[in-house]
Amino acid sequence: MSEKVLSIDKTTLDMLDKAKKDGVETAWDRKEALKAPCGFGAAGVCCRNCTMGPCRVSPVPGKGAERGICGATADVIVSRNYARMVAGGTAAHSDHGRSICLDLYHTSPDGDIKVKDEKKLMKVAARFGVKTEGRDIYEIAHELAATGLQDYGRQFGEPCLPPTLPEKRREIWRKLGIYPRAVDREIASVMHASHIGCTADAESMIKIAMRCSLTDGWMGSYMATEFSDIMFGTPKARHTEANLGVLEDNQVNIVLHGHEPTLSEMIVAAAELPEMIELAKSVGADGINLCGMCCTANEATMRHGVKLAGNFMQQELAVVTGAVEALVVDVQCIFPALAKLSESYHTKFITTSPKARIKGSTFIELDEEDRMGSAKKIITEAIMNFKNRDRSKVMIPELKSEAEVGYSVEQILNKLDGVVNSHIGPMQSAKPLADVIVAGVIRGAAGVVGCNNPKNVHDEGHIEVIKGLIKNDIIVVVTGCSAQAAAKHGLLRKEARELAGPGLKKVCELVDIPPVLHMGSCVDISRILELVGTTANHLGVDMSDLPVVGVAPEYMSEKAIAIGTYVVTSGIDTWLGVVPPVTGGPEVVDILTNRIEEWVGAKFFVEPDPHKTVEQIVARVNEKRKKLGI
Amino acid sequence: MSEKVLSIDKTTLDMLDKAKKDGVETAWDRKEALKAPCGFGAAGVCCRNCTMGPCRVSPVPGKGAERGICGATADVIVSRNYARMVAGGTAAHSDHGRSICLDLYHTSPDGDIKVKDEKKLMKVAARFGVKTEGRDIYEIAHELAATGLQDYGRQFGEPCLPPTLPEKRREIWRKLGIYPRAVDREIASVMHASHIGCTADAESMIKIAMRCSLTDGWMGSYMATEFSDIMFGTPKARHTEANLGVLEDNQVNIVLHGHEPTLSEMIVAAAELPEMIELAKSVGADGINLCGMCCTANEATMRHGVKLAGNFMQQELAVVTGAVEALVVDVQCIFPALAKLSESYHTKFITTSPKARIKGSTFIELDEEDRMGSAKKIITEAIMNFKNRDRSKVMIPELKSEAEVGYSVEQILNKLDGVVNSHIGPMQSAKPLADVIVAGVIRGAAGVVGCNNPKNVHDEGHIEVIKGLIKNDIIVVVTGCSAQAAAKHGLLRKEARELAGPGLKKVCELVDIPPVLHMGSCVDISRILELVGTTANHLGVDMSDLPVVGVAPEYMSEKAIAIGTYVVTSGIDTWLGVVPPVTGGPEVVDILTNRIEEWVGAKFFVEPDPHKTVEQIVARVNEKRKKLGI
Repeated sequence: MSEKVLSIDKTTLDMLDKAKKDGVETAWDRKEALKAPCGFGAAGVCCRNCTMGPCRVSPVPGKGAERGICGATADVIVSRNYARMVAGGTAAHSDHGRSICLDLYHTSPDGDIKVKDEKKLMKVAARFGVKTEGRDIYEIAHELAATGLQDYGRQFGEPCLPPTLPEKRREIWRKLGIYPRAVDREIASVMHASHIGCTADAESMIKIAMRCSLTDGWMGSYMATEFSDIMFGTPKARHTEANLGVLEDNQVNIVLHGHEPTLSEMIVAAAELPEMIELAKSVGADGINLCGMCCTANEATMRHGVKLAGNFMQQELAVVTGAVEALVVDVQCIFPALAKLSESYHTKFITTSPKARIKGSTFIELDEEDRMGSAKKIITEAIMNFKNRDRSKVMIPELKSEAEVGYSVEQILNKLDGVVNSHIGPMQSAKPLADVIVAGVIRGAAGVVGCNNPKNVHDEGHIEVIKGLIKNDIIVVVTGCSAQAAAKHGLLRKEARELAGPGLKKVCELVDIPPVLHMGSCVDISRILELVGTTANHLGVDMSDLPVVGVAPEYMSEKAIAIGTYVVTSGIDTWLGVVPPVTGGPEVVDILTNRIEEWVGAKFFVEPDPHKTVEQIVARVNEKRKKLGI
Repeated sequence: MSEKVLSIDKTTLDMLDKAKKDGVETAWDRKEALKAPCGFGAAGVCCRNCTMGPCRVSPVPGKGAERGICGATADVIVSRNYARMVAGGTAAHSDHGRSICLDLYHTSPDGDIKVKDEKKLMKVAARFGVKTEGRDIYEIAHELAATGLQDYGRQFGEPCLPPTLPEKRREIWRKLGIYPRAVDREIASVMHASHIGCTADAESMIKIAMRCSLTDGWMGSYMATEFSDIMFGTPKARHTEANLGVLEDNQVNIVLHGHEPTLSEMIVAAAELPEMIELAKSVGADGINLCGMCCTANEATMRHGVKLAGNFMQQELAVVTGAVEALVVDVQCIFPALAKLSESYHTKFITTSPKARIKGSTFIELDEEDRMGSAKKIITEAIMNFKNRDRSKVMIPELKSEAEVGYSVEQILNKLDGVVNSHIGPMQSAKPLADVIVAGVIRGAAGVVGCNNPKNVHDEGHIEVIKGLIKNDIIVVVTGCSAQAAAKHGLLRKEARELAGPGLKKVCELVDIPPVLHMGSCVDISRILELVGTTANHLGVDMSDLPVVGVAPEYMSEKAIAIGTYVVTSGIDTWLGVVPPVTGGPEVVDILTNRIEEWVGAKFFVEPDPHKTVEQIVARVNEKRKKLGI
């Protein structure tokens, strides 16, 4: 491995050292072994959509082959590849949303999953036109679920988009011909249009991708969040701890990793059962220590304060501590490498979803008929594995940080309203938030989101961008792996307001919040859309008028590409810290970073340097404020 | 260009010479310019499903990097790429099917599109459980369309698969966990499962792809065929001509290219209007000469005898003749290169579908509110372009072949029943077909299908395989570009029975059919499924028991990959003449060419040599006959 610093997180560096000593490989080693990535692929000019090729055209105009065998130009190839990434990301988020819909459909008062937040149920049912008066809440829940699912498969009529989406924005989409029709249909549309011999016009292809992405943000992800809140509770502010130091020396450590909250909810509930705690004690452990990784961590911490073991690039390092009895996963962002790695330690690598079976793992399906039974089985596996822990291989880092998590939109507006209740009521007014932004006490708001990527120094992008923004009185909300980075680096503590500019600091003091608000998992970017839409509606403007931005400093997944696309299409400028595979298509680059602004009032900025990112955002926020006349 | 023979078709070679003289490039030139295709891509071991890479692992085990950054092995990467090709192909066919459903939904007695085949409407309505008694046929048609569309977006319950699908086959799929749920959903499922951090088990990934492919064959394509027949008529045997020689010297030549029959049906109808013929004469032409290319050609020739200008690799050559006033396209398999190429001639390159806009083309959308109006506009464009034909650039090849086309299942069974009516009645019995197979007069049946691919000598694979099979008393049905190859080489003539073995020859004489039956376009492979299923049901066996095979000697599209997958999953052995991009994944290769047989009773054979293909098929057919005890 090169001498380049790989992470700004000390536990990560310590665990990488241990991995080296243990003779096991991590993603960084594999990246090193692969050497330079293919230049054609990185530029997006490699096409494998038929078997005449594969074709790779020149990423530099006027140099080398300009067209694939069918005649596809670099821009055609790049735009198709981009669109397919959007389709992949949309499919991932939305299929997660579908599972949540189906879970809601199967809730029952005596089942494993119940309706926990009746008020949210009523609110969401209303927006879907589901009658609530005088009805049993489970009847409402089931009809709501079925109604939501209709928008996955709808073939006629328009889907139900939330009222937080400003009317002006809907009109823009209608005029552009990108008003979404149905989740699954838009994914199929992208796959068809990008098939050999179909769309060969970058502008048209990008618009088809934009339409698809909207079903992610405003439908699949939105329902995932809303329906999860109904079943598992709308998050409220609570305390937790973050980083690998949350693993316990004499407890059965179970790391929950993946995305859908259902698995973690079941495990959390089962781990609290006296029989499970007894079992853990019977094998000599002090108890069961549940920790989260990636988005599952965000889901579980928002609702239960489950500790955050780390983010995407730390998933292997949890195993390397030698102290994890079971790494339990469902879907998305799970390294297949964990199967081989866990063989070098005692860790049981347990997969649970038919959507993501991994060779070499132990598969214990979360049985839809008996989820608690499956959860107990999984925990039992972990407990019985405690005896196999090899003390000589254990090294639990000391480092962990305090953090406050759980800032749902309801919680944020409640806090800003100065009404800090233990129970979160129906949607509060966006007035206080709008007021502080209009007054300039807070200059703007940024959603810092997305993954880790070994192309970047781990966590550096997230942390430097967040620090820079709050210093400039731009309040930050975080989700996904960015949220964990912020948590690990102490930015989710209220004390972090000391790093904020004077205006933001004052607001944080007044309403007793951190300057960086944990809004959840990646599907919870729908919460950010809700917050921005609500504020825009309050001010009677479009989302693109507001001084708000999105930033994905270290993204890597297709989901992030889908997110970036729907965020921009929703009118919010988005900064990418990793160069997307589009550089070989000059027209595509022009569309995404320039022309798209004429269409939707926002565009992409690609800037790997976090400090420059901050400068650009501050300038853009000021521009927007000026245009708004505030 | 190298001295290698590129085609066995003389007109193709002549036109390639002309292209050279004219200084224009074709797909063969572009293939040459691209040099050797990327070995990683060709082996399927290149992964671009996230932005950590792209990663390319070694296609040879034990040599070079064995895992991507996330830890994905060659088999994981290959299986994901394969699955995504299936999703792309399924999306293309099924989205075509969706358009047909929507067209049926909008039929009206005074509209552009009417119900033409009431008997088929009644039959199909019955299988979908749509009541027919005493109802207006348009009411039935609309309910049928809406019911069919439900199976695209269904989120609960099982879709309606046709009764031709044997019960034993359904059971196999249920046991394997691959019974399809809904068209769009299965596409989304593949995209999700192949996302970073999801399915990392080749067996699981291939099964998810198989489930997706079934929605293509038994749902999207099946509905496309059935509903097209209802609106445009169930094909019956008719005469036509094939190859570029069908272009006329003093007529307005319009080449229809693409897939969905709606466009061609409208153009065919509009071209017969006296006002259009008058207009053509007013510019000095003798009339309007409609010709077809690729699957649009198959659709239009089956129902109207429209002449076949050529197949996939000839699309550019039609323009090179200098005699085409307009090349009118809708979706799929359309070279983007046609835009640039048509600039060198007078040809108008007209795109019509928002699903496939092509830069540099003239876009005239087929207006859903006034299709005939759009068709007339398109034809007028062509006619007004006649004066721009540059006589010095014109070279129409003399070669064309006679052909008999239009063998729908109804037509085949009718013929075999010895009841050759001008009107085709409801489904006839499969008994005569089953009888001649059981008796061994015909040894078996083969569907020879699929595209052209410049990796092969153009048309050679199709022709050599077909000739070899009929010589061995294996009756051949053809669709897609294989059908046009057969037509061009005289194999769709009744006289071609002289090339058949004694048994097949006798049957052809008795029932007055060619030994090679034209069954339509690529979505019409559903007709082949119907024929095989009907025969299996008649004999009380499963489809995998029958001595029938599929062959795609020169395939190139993702649709072909999807087709191959559903054909094998339906129990029919399939030969591929082009090596699919899976060779880098030893487990995937083993699954597709070996293990899959344990699951579904059929498997893939990869054999670029057409003569060896024939030998292998004959052996396999004999094996199946032996097992059946016939």
